[in-house]
Amino acid sequence: MASTHLKFDSADAHRAWLRSQSALPQGFRCGTTRFEFVPVEVHKPSKMALTLIALDEPTDAFAAMFTRNAFPGAPVIIGRQRLGAPKLSAIIVNNKVSNVCAPNGVETAERVCAEVARCLGVAQSEVLPSSTGVIGWQLPAEAILANVEHAARALQSESVFPAAEGIVTTDLYPKVRSAAVGDGRIVGIAKGAGMIEPNLATMLVYILTDVDISRDELRAALRASVEESFHSMSIDSDTSTSDTIVALSSRKKKLPSLAAFQAALTQVCWDLTEDVVRNGEGVHHVMRVRVSGAPTRQSARAIGKSIVNSPLFQCAVCGNDPNVGRLVMAVGKWVGEHLPGADLSRCAITMGGESLLVDGVFRLDPTREAALVAHMRAAELYASVPPEDGVTFKPPIRFPPHEACVEIEVALGLGDAECTVLGADRTHEYISENADYRT
Amino acid sequence: MASTHLKFDSADAHRAWLRSQSALPQGFRCGTTRFEFVPVEVHKPSKMALTLIALDEPTDAFAAMFTRNAFPGAPVIIGRQRLGAPKLSAIIVNNKVSNVCAPNGVETAERVCAEVARCLGVAQSEVLPSSTGVIGWQLPAEAILANVEHAARALQSESVFPAAEGIVTTDLYPKVRSAAVGDGRIVGIAKGAGMIEPNLATMLVYILTDVDISRDELRAALRASVEESFHSMSIDSDTSTSDTIVALSSRKKKLPSLAAFQAALTQVCWDLTEDVVRNGEGVHHVMRVRVSGAPTRQSARAIGKSIVNSPLFQCAVCGNDPNVGRLVMAVGKWVGEHLPGADLSRCAITMGGESLLVDGVFRLDPTREAALVAHMRAAELYASVPPEDGVTFKPPIRFPPHEACVEIEVALGLGDAECTVLGADRTHEYISENADYRT
Repeated sequence: MASTHLKFDSADAHRAWLRSQSALPQGFRCGTTRFEFVPVEVHKPSKMALTLIALDEPTDAFAAMFTRNAFPGAPVIIGRQRLGAPKLSAIIVNNKVSNVCAPNGVETAERVCAEVARCLGVAQSEVLPSSTGVIGWQLPAEAILANVEHAARALQSESVFPAAEGIVTTDLYPKVRSAAVGDGRIVGIAKGAGMIEPNLATMLVYILTDVDISRDELRAALRASVEESFHSMSIDSDTSTSDTIVALSSRKKKLPSLAAFQAALTQVCWDLTEDVVRNGEGVHHVMRVRVSGAPTRQSARAIGKSIVNSPLFQCAVCGNDPNVGRLVMAVGKWVGEHLPGADLSRCAITMGGESLLVDGVFRLDPTREAALVAHMRAAELYASVPPEDGVTFKPPIRFPPHEACVEIEVALGLGDAECTVLGADRTHEYISENADYRT
Repeated sequence: MASTHLKFDSADAHRAWLRSQSALPQGFRCGTTRFEFVPVEVHKPSKMALTLIALDEPTDAFAAMFTRNAFPGAPVIIGRQRLGAPKLSAIIVNNKVSNVCAPNGVETAERVCAEVARCLGVAQSEVLPSSTGVIGWQLPAEAILANVEHAARALQSESVFPAAEGIVTTDLYPKVRSAAVGDGRIVGIAKGAGMIEPNLATMLVYILTDVDISRDELRAALRASVEESFHSMSIDSDTSTSDTIVALSSRKKKLPSLAAFQAALTQVCWDLTEDVVRNGEGVHHVMRVRVSGAPTRQSARAIGKSIVNSPLFQCAVCGNDPNVGRLVMAVGKWVGEHLPGADLSRCAITMGGESLLVDGVFRLDPTREAALVAHMRAAELYASVPPEDGVTFKPPIRFPPHEACVEIEVALGLGDAECTVLGADRTHEYISENADYRT
């Protein structure tokens, strides 16, 4: 699975490209509205975007996967019930408040669904709710109920771009990916920048297609594509309470073949996965780690995640510092704990194609060090800019200048399984973003 | 296990207190020497401290525990062999280079042991090597061999303080703790500030006692004390390749009772554990998390670590931001993955004594929010100071002003087991320390 290797030199150029991908598949409409509210928990005005995605006609072809966090949000609890419903007609998404463990959370979410159903003239059970944002706060029910009709009035059938913009929180930019399948299309949008190590899906992802595929086929295809993509990334090892991925088909266009659909769906999912990591909070470098020679695919993925989630290695990558000892530490940490007694004496590691470790022994010298630094610098999205107030770092760009990654290959010498994992470095911008997220 | 709640208003006052704890038990000497060397990997001069801890007479009463990382350093490989040796006479410790996966690492470490043995007139197998520092670099054999005799000449029997200073790397200050046992004493020193989530022991810890205890009793006592202390902390979830904890007895003083020795040893280990976390790289706040109502002690510890290792919660604590949704997320993340189906509807959480979550539902309001902020501020060791170059943060103090913690209690409602875990926040100083550690 390769990146598309797009390059952008401005936010305008990036947005123009996103818009070019945003045509809605046949049979869908979407609309977004924005308003102010006051959380009862902090008494300070805040802003919310409410996004409605609607089908022209109810569909039985829908699939969804949700977080495995044991404190799931109310929308996740409701979403699991909706999976058994015969039809789905709409998704209503709010940002800013995730509605997790809040008093009367499920009841409030259902009230919102009822209002959407009233506005669209569909059944309440055909509306799927989604929320992302601060955990612990209550959904501002009255403010949302007063604005559902505005979202419904904003519905249009041209572009998914307003929805891609409406669902974000700390994201620097919206994320849209698309692929053709025969005469039909798949369009996906994603929200996600922090609290990302999905355990069943990631944050909020909505995939719309007009390709005629049955419910069972769509659910199987989604599971397979998510396994290949969202399951193999981590920004900060934290599993959200709200992770949700939904796929909907309007069934308007002929399915050329299941294989073609699966390939296109996986491509869209993988591209969105890369986008989510690249736009992760404070990310300067995306790391792509291919672990091979593992006993199982699960262990290959876990070792890849041990590398991309190592705080020390993340910091080294941030500093364009090829501190490859920390890379080796991260492999040994996982293997020592989970495969005690495993023999790593045939382990080989490369970064940017440079050989670092052969048969379990380092080969480091000043020439190789310089090559590694050059590889890391070439994959840097931006460097930190000294903050105006001395301590609060802000990313200097709001678009991805390129799609290069720090490329790491680990050959364990323990078996035949492999997995590719995406992750990112740890930076001052992540600390600044999260040390004072709510204030 | 309680902190001693010491307070210090200057580095001088802190050092004076450390010196007051530093008297060597009878039968021990130690000495440290410092010198320059040039790593072959980067061709830039660096400084190393070489520390020798020696017994007046060889002892059979020694115990050691080592990292479980599957890429152990050469000193760990040798240390495991030494456990079977009849006697131990000395420990030789270098900082700066950890001698992990380096070409001929074991051979070089053994050459250093041989030189120590020659200087002290003991057998090579009676010398235990220890190394900490950059992973991947080779030990500068010639420079070390030329300086062993200087370390031997510096041996003195008054104070462990020079050794406590000699073994550090990025530590802000040395760590010494002691306890009386009958007429004898236990004195422990520790090094460790990053790459700390021990899986069998932590970084480098040396515990010296003159209390007469047999080898078997000492090994059992050390295992029990480490289980209570070092195993329950994490600074950055990274398990070092060099973690080593060694206990040595000169057997000069009468053992009053095994129970008294065990209690004193656990106290020294716990105090050193707190010291290591408090002096963790960039730490502004120590978190103490007590998880109760768990199915097992192991799951209680794992949930505590899930909280203290959550990057998002760490950042919130750094910002004195009571973003308790992230605390709940971190509990749900672990439970969802490891105890699927577990019912958290009776879960209760407090911070600083304030009730946040009762029966799985949040109770948040502006008054409680203010109380949580006050609790977090009171536990802050220092606040970030805007860096001179705009981006490189440095801790403004080199001593611990107090021993207060952010106190978190999680009652799961799933069983009767409990565990207390120590951890820390994630800060700009950690990023600055580790984004460019080697340059």
